Amino acid sequence: MIDYARYDRVRAVAFDADRLRLLDQRRLPFEQTFLECRTADAVAQAIADLVVRGAPAIGIAAAWAVVLAGLSLGTASVAQARLALEPVLERLHAARPTAVNLAWALARMRGALAHAGEDWQARVRAEAEAIEREDLAANRRMGELGAARIAPGSGVLTHCNTGSLATAGFGTALGVIRAGVAQGRIARVFATETRPWMQGARLTVWEMREDGIDATLIADSAAAHLMGTGQVQWVIVGADRITARGDVANKIGTLQLAIAARHFGVKFMVVAPWSTVDLATASGADIPIEERDPAELLGHAGRRTVAEGVRAFNPVFDVTPAALIDAIVTERGVLLAPFDIALREASAAA
Amino acid sequence: MIDYARYDRVRAVAFDADRLRLLDQRRLPFEQTFLECRTADAVAQAIADLVVRGAPAIGIAAAWAVVLAGLSLGTASVAQARLALEPVLERLHAARPTAVNLAWALARMRGALAHAGEDWQARVRAEAEAIEREDLAANRRMGELGAARIAPGSGVLTHCNTGSLATAGFGTALGVIRAGVAQGRIARVFATETRPWMQGARLTVWEMREDGIDATLIADSAAAHLMGTGQVQWVIVGADRITARGDVANKIGTLQLAIAARHFGVKFMVVAPWSTVDLATASGADIPIEERDPAELLGHAGRRTVAEGVRAFNPVFDVTPAALIDAIVTERGVLLAPFDIALREASAAA
Repeated sequence: MIDYARYDRVRAVAFDADRLRLLDQRRLPFEQTFLECRTADAVAQAIADLVVRGAPAIGIAAAWAVVLAGLSLGTASVAQARLALEPVLERLHAARPTAVNLAWALARMRGALAHAGEDWQARVRAEAEAIEREDLAANRRMGELGAARIAPGSGVLTHCNTGSLATAGFGTALGVIRAGVAQGRIARVFATETRPWMQGARLTVWEMREDGIDATLIADSAAAHLMGTGQVQWVIVGADRITARGDVANKIGTLQLAIAARHFGVKFMVVAPWSTVDLATASGADIPIEERDPAELLGHAGRRTVAEGVRAFNPVFDVTPAALIDAIVTERGVLLAPFDIALREASAAA
Repeated sequence: MIDYARYDRVRAVAFDADRLRLLDQRRLPFEQTFLECRTADAVAQAIADLVVRGAPAIGIAAAWAVVLAGLSLGTASVAQARLALEPVLERLHAARPTAVNLAWALARMRGALAHAGEDWQARVRAEAEAIEREDLAANRRMGELGAARIAPGSGVLTHCNTGSLATAGFGTALGVIRAGVAQGRIARVFATETRPWMQGARLTVWEMREDGIDATLIADSAAAHLMGTGQVQWVIVGADRITARGDVANKIGTLQLAIAARHFGVKFMVVAPWSTVDLATASGADIPIEERDPAELLGHAGRRTVAEGVRAFNPVFDVTPAALIDAIVTERGVLLAPFDIALREASAAA
């Protein structure tokens, strides 16, 4: 049995009566400060600014943002609420383009509103609660399912942050790692720094230290060398969007890890809740890849590190083709190739 | 014709009468300060501390360090000088383990001393001058040879810094890029940041901006995504050691780039003077890989960025197997697979 209580000592997103408290992830690991949002616009800005990040956490924050917007409408009728909240849903949707969980959570909120009567305030609140609760349950289930695939004594490498900070709790890829360590299957954990935003260096190894899991940080570019030493048996990552044929959009650098893993015979596991699956998108070529401000590469901690006049290209996601993936773990089960068929079957089975 | 004068406005290593002036590369691109070394020990420390870096530049600095040590012996006999300088040669050799140019330059200095008479001071000085002069000539020759392989309109990606700062001038991989741009063959230049020491972000794009070459900086982990967009036809890198079968030790991350390049059908070129070739080392498995202080990953600009109590693994070189390399450019010519035979022939032809 896994003692889940020990993992979620910090919550990235917490709704409280009339405000959404967001742990400001830009300031981790040294400062635990919270941003209190009382409007949906404030939440949208916080998502765009990476106060909160991680595909599932973004979806949850956006769902609560709709609740906040609803509260500001007071005793409006459901017809008025539908009219007033539609532009709010659209503004939230535009906050970040690549992760599909955001669109999925907002579609659920829109659906709850569509089916609500004059109890719409309670209905949208219940929907946000359900999205959050279901995400936590999915992560625990995925942790068990994913860990079961890992042979005892294995080493794993993860990329970016997919833990409690990126989800409602426990995490996706990090949930599998937590479960695998708890079960004694995983003997070595490595985490990449994850330039430019350093989610691995700032967030992942901090979460694991809090867990008492001994993790080793590496530069992103040291991953292939590490794989060559035989210390890694699985690369385990999250996802921001999974297409109908199993192509996976995830943090920039994921593709490079998958190519290196295949080269060295290291297995590659993607862990993401079903809300990440986007069967309406055929292949990776159809996924919008967010480019962020080149300034993320040109400076550090507010200080310029690169000469003036230099350009940068800063795509923050990439697409790993299905052919480089060995397993996609969702709460509906562990999917194996051919992923197009496995995804269709898992969709129909729901 | 290439106007070489425009490229070497800054010299990384400059001997002047009784001191060696080293451009302090830890402070670039914003501060151009120089460290003046008057003893061989000071130079050894500067090499270990990365004041000067880049395999050819390290070799040149070490050669001049022997000259400095010789000066301190005044009118000593050649027999006394051989005795006194041997431990100096050994200390310099220990400064950094992976690049073979250091050992090669020191072997040349030892040889000059072995063949010298009472004119030994002049002989060791002439040898250091020759090492420096020959490196610059080799770079210009390699620039022409390498650029000739690049089809007009190509995009190139480079890693780490291999320019004037890493050599006696013009550069190795960067020399090929400079020649290729000057000849109108190269249409797009991309440079990786090169964690952890940021040679690409701090040095390479700065050198290219000084040249008026429009280069675009990317995160190390964005390289595969970039290759997937079709904008890059060649990855061009330097080397710290090339083994008898053509395996190449170079900056950490080179292996990952080579694997991704092969995956996407992008060609991979290694550019290094013949002094980098180490026929006494059979394969990459025999190359000592330097690990540097994990602190290079745990902080930035003197400020800790990673939680306390976290471990890091910081290998600063990796080995790219010959099978992933399309061309090795030396001043003796462009070598193609099978590299073991090409290297043996180039060695015999000298």
